[in-house]
Amino acid sequence: MNIRWNLSGDEIEKESFRVIYEETRNTPLATLPEQEWRVARRLIHTTADIHIADTLTFSNNPIQAGIEALQKCANIICDSKMIRSGLSLAKLQKINPQYTEEKLICSISDEDVITKAKKEGRTRAICAVEKNRHLLDNAIILVGNAPLSLAKTVQYVLEDNAKPALIIGMPVGFVNVVESKEYLTTCSIPYISLLGRRGGSALAVTTLHAIMENILD
Amino acid sequence: MNIRWNLSGDEIEKESFRVIYEETRNTPLATLPEQEWRVARRLIHTTADIHIADTLTFSNNPIQAGIEALQKCANIICDSKMIRSGLSLAKLQKINPQYTEEKLICSISDEDVITKAKKEGRTRAICAVEKNRHLLDNAIILVGNAPLSLAKTVQYVLEDNAKPALIIGMPVGFVNVVESKEYLTTCSIPYISLLGRRGGSALAVTTLHAIMENILD
Repeated sequence: MNIRWNLSGDEIEKESFRVIYEETRNTPLATLPEQEWRVARRLIHTTADIHIADTLTFSNNPIQAGIEALQKCANIICDSKMIRSGLSLAKLQKINPQYTEEKLICSISDEDVITKAKKEGRTRAICAVEKNRHLLDNAIILVGNAPLSLAKTVQYVLEDNAKPALIIGMPVGFVNVVESKEYLTTCSIPYISLLGRRGGSALAVTTLHAIMENILD
Repeated sequence: MNIRWNLSGDEIEKESFRVIYEETRNTPLATLPEQEWRVARRLIHTTADIHIADTLTFSNNPIQAGIEALQKCANIICDSKMIRSGLSLAKLQKINPQYTEEKLICSISDEDVITKAKKEGRTRAICAVEKNRHLLDNAIILVGNAPLSLAKTVQYVLEDNAKPALIIGMPVGFVNVVESKEYLTTCSIPYISLLGRRGGSALAVTTLHAIMENILD
């Protein structure tokens, strides 16, 4: 079997990026500015789907907003535990040594959130956003799972003057997903999204890691 | 904006499954046996990609093997922290109350694994499998990230008589991924895989959750 056993992680990444470049260089992705291309490339790298970035959308200078928020040690609010566990604390600490686990917030499995959702017949996702309303200003919001997490955040922006630094809006699925992303496009705050049904926790994580590359490389 | 705010999690899942059924009922997926269909449906649900299950492969009665291993509280060895954090301990405990966090094993960020990988110029993934060689027998192996994690596990099966209960082999990417899955197909132990480049931590997690549905529903 033709397996290359002795490659290092860095060598595998370099070879992967070479293949991605080869397979996208005659597509519109090749015309993206460098910082946006890094996001597209990481999305393709994470999914091995050459077309995953075709609906990638940047609005209101989100990469610069993300860089500045990371440098200020902004709270990072995640809609799933998988997002929180996928974020590299080591890399965050290279950007700002003040980063600790406590700055990576996910309330989806908090007892009070579970109880409230069950009692009210609503999703845990929406109850978690409500719980963290007071943390939204200046935070980086990562949504890779629940569309109502994104929609509730957007509602706070539009109707309650919340001012997150950056929203990475990539919920996934068949119900409320397309709609929540359209709702996001009515915001004038910085955001990155994948329009349509596609998304996922790994995609939200890798988008923030791609932003971090601009500081760390 | 046409967002349906007041759906419960169960209602969203039910509606999602309805859409997936509608969009796949004239495809080969519709002919899958019930237990395999549940896996395909969850993969589509997790990615919102109707074609994600087109290369889904089952071999050596893997769903029954998984059910029996879960009922015996088998170790679940994960190649990424995202997999471990995505697994539902609450559901596992409904199957076997002896399940604890300690049965969900991931060594990718262990200090000794990081040190060894750096020293030897190899991947952390392969060093993590080596560290857990003594745990492979009767374990459920979840690979959603690193192809060399899958390849090393297969090598232990073929050349060192390791006997995992079930391998869910869904690494993702451009280097060694297709090859590691082809290597898996030479095993005579139970496995589920997504042939080709596609895969991911969320897909490995959701495959095990789909197997669990057969016990819990």
